[in-house]
Amino acid sequence: MKKHNFSAGPSILPQEVFEKAAQAVLDFNNSGLSILEISHRSKDFVAVMEEARALVLELMGLEGKGYQALFLSGGASLEFLRVPYNLMKMHGKAAYLDTGTWAAGAIKEARQFGDTNVIGSSKADNYSYIPKDYTVPADADYFHCTSNNTIFGTQMHSFPETTIPVVCDMSSDIFSRNLDFSKFDLIYAGAQKNMGPAGTTLIVVKESILGHTGRVIPSILDYKQHIDKESMYNTPSVFAVYTSYLTLQWLKNNGGIDAMEKRNNDKAALLYAEIDRNPLFSGTAKTKDRSRMNVTFLLKDEAHTEQFDKLWKAAGISGLPGHRSVGGYRASIYNAMPIESVQVLVDVMKELERSSQ
Amino acid sequence: MKKHNFSAGPSILPQEVFEKAAQAVLDFNNSGLSILEISHRSKDFVAVMEEARALVLELMGLEGKGYQALFLSGGASLEFLRVPYNLMKMHGKAAYLDTGTWAAGAIKEARQFGDTNVIGSSKADNYSYIPKDYTVPADADYFHCTSNNTIFGTQMHSFPETTIPVVCDMSSDIFSRNLDFSKFDLIYAGAQKNMGPAGTTLIVVKESILGHTGRVIPSILDYKQHIDKESMYNTPSVFAVYTSYLTLQWLKNNGGIDAMEKRNNDKAALLYAEIDRNPLFSGTAKTKDRSRMNVTFLLKDEAHTEQFDKLWKAAGISGLPGHRSVGGYRASIYNAMPIESVQVLVDVMKELERSSQ
Repeated sequence: MKKHNFSAGPSILPQEVFEKAAQAVLDFNNSGLSILEISHRSKDFVAVMEEARALVLELMGLEGKGYQALFLSGGASLEFLRVPYNLMKMHGKAAYLDTGTWAAGAIKEARQFGDTNVIGSSKADNYSYIPKDYTVPADADYFHCTSNNTIFGTQMHSFPETTIPVVCDMSSDIFSRNLDFSKFDLIYAGAQKNMGPAGTTLIVVKESILGHTGRVIPSILDYKQHIDKESMYNTPSVFAVYTSYLTLQWLKNNGGIDAMEKRNNDKAALLYAEIDRNPLFSGTAKTKDRSRMNVTFLLKDEAHTEQFDKLWKAAGISGLPGHRSVGGYRASIYNAMPIESVQVLVDVMKELERSSQ
Repeated sequence: MKKHNFSAGPSILPQEVFEKAAQAVLDFNNSGLSILEISHRSKDFVAVMEEARALVLELMGLEGKGYQALFLSGGASLEFLRVPYNLMKMHGKAAYLDTGTWAAGAIKEARQFGDTNVIGSSKADNYSYIPKDYTVPADADYFHCTSNNTIFGTQMHSFPETTIPVVCDMSSDIFSRNLDFSKFDLIYAGAQKNMGPAGTTLIVVKESILGHTGRVIPSILDYKQHIDKESMYNTPSVFAVYTSYLTLQWLKNNGGIDAMEKRNNDKAALLYAEIDRNPLFSGTAKTKDRSRMNVTFLLKDEAHTEQFDKLWKAAGISGLPGHRSVGGYRASIYNAMPIESVQVLVDVMKELERSSQ
């Protein structure tokens, strides 16, 4: 039976990516060798790294604008640390927007470096909305935000205008919608949602913002070192980078970010319409801040839980339970998720309504 | 034609590991889902992580001795930073042995934390031997060494006795030979030689050495946090951990570390015997410090280079050129390399000798 994988991450990738990745594990580029056993310095892999880095800038419309793309290791959680190390001046300060668990994690790591100001937070309302009544201080070293909150199902649909560098954790909505990416100075994203498997982190950074802290930066944490070494300062996560490259190619061949955005909007509209229409369900996020990647919802009456869980499991759906801090359900509808799978979920929700009447 | 992959890393893994890993990319544990799209919190992957961590301690004879095994991200180069963060006291000092490029990298990262003493170095002789005339200071916070030097083809065949914690980067010889691992307090190794693909780092740490620095440790760099979260503080490199688990299972099923050591000694003896016998070749490392993982050698007369390169390429050998800092050739003969492939190389060396007479 076909599976409909609504996992929040690691998460669904295009079927053709799985097939090409599996083939490369057996034989990479007809070399007679597995992609797992080749040197990262081999000609074929250096080409993968170079093309993947170029493709990121091309897809984001950032070519020739002073940006560099890097595929580093350690996860987005390591970027929580790399960001202040690279951008917070000695005796400087930073401004953070607190919109969820991961934003709070970034804030925690920044605090030991210096004056870390939380200029807006929705924590008191269990992060069910995106704060908007805040001002980005013009004298901070940078502003940090999280574009999409995987756990709470909220997403920033607009970003503040400011003169200071803007840093954004786009782990769970990168490549899902078009933005003027040149308004961001540093974007980072763990690969394991829209871009690839767990194991690599994309960093897109405007070079001119680096090198101004007066701080000694450990080599492995220094973005400039990674740029100088063309994202090969140390051994990259070869397979994760290759699989991300395959996904980026798929994305380009399927219309790029604009086409993804349209598909994602259609999927989200279909599912939210059912949540709002069906008397058994309610959404958890404030309507105007709803995420088009992670759709969080509850059964109004928990007595229906057993029946609903039985129905969606029988329909081949997996990965639907919500995060423990929100409860209920979370349907993650990343780029690679076809609208047909969303329709299967909507049909199950309708079926629950019928069977409970 | 069968390939004989002598790459220094990422490097050869058992063929059955490639086949199982490729299958899991298409369908993991008959779940209908790829290992690339499942949650790291799913029951099946949590089991992989738990079993892999237990298998490491079992293979090393460290069960019940106060050790924890972790699979972290960021590469061994990140451990160069994690080690001083976790072990160097405020105003403390550390002792390092400088045996090659990677040891020097570890020293560089430690220096900004405090008093980093290089108590022995073979740098002046292009790292062609392992220093032995050194004393580990009893008042240092820890002693750091690199057990095998991939680039220079040297290996520590004994370790100093000391009362302070011993930290060892075993990236290129982990699981290749039996040692009394309980004499080490912290062992780390990038997976991409004997254990798996690039993308995860094994850390084996004695818990009692942690928590004594008086230093604030960023969460992502704090071994205690990773232990508390059972190696899932942040999303692990799922595929790299799974493939490492497959390799560890293969290792156990093929006799464990003792059996590997015997095979590796046989392979190294075969190749070094030919280097010493064949008048066209010479080894680069001092004989008593030769590595049984990375065999570095030169053509005495560079005029033979073109002919030798033609011969080994025709025999299906790949990954043989030496690192630029040593030149010549480097045959990496990790656990998964069969002795038959080493014999192919030896035959080519003999053929060169015959054809040049």
